[in-house]
Amino acid sequence: MVVLLNLIQQFQPPLFSTTKSLSSNKSRVVRTSISCSSSSSSMYPQNKRLRFIDLPYLPTPQRNLMVDLVSKMETSLGSQLLPSSLPLDVQYFENESGSSQGALDIRSGTQDSTVDFILGSWIHSKLPSGALNITTLTAYLNNTTDAPRFLIEFIQSSPTSLILILDLPPRKDLILYPDYLTTFYNDTQLDRFRQQLVKLPEIQPYFSSSLYTRSVFSTTAVSIVIDCGTGGPDRMDEIILDDVSPAAKEMLDIWLDKCVCGGRDMEEQERVDLKKRDVLVNKKTLEIDLVAGLPRLFGPDVANRVIEAIQKYSLA
Amino acid sequence: MVVLLNLIQQFQPPLFSTTKSLSSNKSRVVRTSISCSSSSSSMYPQNKRLRFIDLPYLPTPQRNLMVDLVSKMETSLGSQLLPSSLPLDVQYFENESGSSQGALDIRSGTQDSTVDFILGSWIHSKLPSGALNITTLTAYLNNTTDAPRFLIEFIQSSPTSLILILDLPPRKDLILYPDYLTTFYNDTQLDRFRQQLVKLPEIQPYFSSSLYTRSVFSTTAVSIVIDCGTGGPDRMDEIILDDVSPAAKEMLDIWLDKCVCGGRDMEEQERVDLKKRDVLVNKKTLEIDLVAGLPRLFGPDVANRVIEAIQKYSLA
Repeated sequence: MVVLLNLIQQFQPPLFSTTKSLSSNKSRVVRTSISCSSSSSSMYPQNKRLRFIDLPYLPTPQRNLMVDLVSKMETSLGSQLLPSSLPLDVQYFENESGSSQGALDIRSGTQDSTVDFILGSWIHSKLPSGALNITTLTAYLNNTTDAPRFLIEFIQSSPTSLILILDLPPRKDLILYPDYLTTFYNDTQLDRFRQQLVKLPEIQPYFSSSLYTRSVFSTTAVSIVIDCGTGGPDRMDEIILDDVSPAAKEMLDIWLDKCVCGGRDMEEQERVDLKKRDVLVNKKTLEIDLVAGLPRLFGPDVANRVIEAIQKYSLA
Repeated sequence: MVVLLNLIQQFQPPLFSTTKSLSSNKSRVVRTSISCSSSSSSMYPQNKRLRFIDLPYLPTPQRNLMVDLVSKMETSLGSQLLPSSLPLDVQYFENESGSSQGALDIRSGTQDSTVDFILGSWIHSKLPSGALNITTLTAYLNNTTDAPRFLIEFIQSSPTSLILILDLPPRKDLILYPDYLTTFYNDTQLDRFRQQLVKLPEIQPYFSSSLYTRSVFSTTAVSIVIDCGTGGPDRMDEIILDDVSPAAKEMLDIWLDKCVCGGRDMEEQERVDLKKRDVLVNKKTLEIDLVAGLPRLFGPDVANRVIEAIQKYSLA
């Protein structure tokens, strides 16, 4: 959510109606998992306090993947993660009409961990053009290591089309630190995930409309649009299950193995610079994405509450 | 040439014969401009000392575009450019058998100019899979400004397929300097060139096999494969003339207007850091591209002579 909420703007009419590859498919009413989005008031009444891990509006393969990733992260990091301490009205939030709902979970790392915090979120919004679902899992490391972050994000605007970002975003200037590129990107052959996925005819590279957001990603980022067209939602499920899930799981394994545990020697000044860079990225990303996008879906009060809660972790 | 000679490796068999989109079309013998490459010994005898600006093996629209860009650069920069002082055997070079030929031109900027040097080059090589032509024009600025460089490069391996890089590569870490991104990329709407070009069905994004090379480019870089398939070389000419040429010329205008003349205040330490970064980029790029690729085409002696000549400018 932190990285790509600026995309909400792209899903507002009229842009939505003119963007061919992301156009919604209003006439199609399909399978239980997707059709939830049009019958949410009965299935997920407003008095039920949903959690991040419920991921209520996602098609099953996406939900299973996110649950597996969270579970793998929690199991691997174990006691390095503190329990969530977010206020209840930030763990789950909605707008006045209930047409937009969201959930957030943040778990800080312990003092002796390289993990700064893990952030999971989902947003579901009934827009005039159809339901929008944004689901994110991001892991931030602190400045005891300069290793990359982990990020996965699904932005789905119709049952047959979604944007996927899957990346280990770097925390150093790759031009000044070519050995960083070698360690985390060349030696891990990270580009193979992108290469494999773009071979599928349904997949095209995706370029975020924000140039700053593009700069945040690594040069090996899986940043793609999956558009199944006449293949329908079944083909989408198949791609998530057969192609995206293995890539995402393997990338998480690389992150857990090489980044969380992959400490690199740093001078004190390098740590100070790293902290400054991390906070700057988080601040700019919040500005571009959440400050611009969240009030449109939830109104200013709810949006501010959620943004302030995230700032306590990301700008600290 | 400085940025993309690593591509030569991709045009060597067996990779060449397995890369569908870049495969040569041996059976096709077409138009004067391309067919030059198979009759070069008569049209361009080895005792004729070719110059960079001759661009002898390029199809007319590519040649005209490069000549126009060089001409515009030379006219606009005028007395800011010193005459070329390269040795004759670096201005034009070939391998023993004459199957690979190349030309290089470098013009330094005067002491009071922001221009460090301008480098133009072409390479023509008869490979088993067909003729390879690489044509480059790059403009480097010195550390009196941190404004981006200018780069255009054509890598053509068949009459119907080519790779184009067109970019203003940044000289700062865009994450640490978001105002740099705003000034040179957002305010100039630089992304529109990429957006326009990838709308054509013959054009796909191109990802260099070198992650470092990818890191050198801006997030708005036109990095594309143009594959005309059954449209043939006439369609390629049309795309170069109607779509690529206007984009390249407009991008050069932006560079001349906003970068050469677009000084930004810098502290002394910032200038020192900038110089360090520029030299590191140049050194890494030479290593990746020329040191690995040039000896394959020209043998070690010629390759070393050319590389050493470039180093005198790019690592100074």
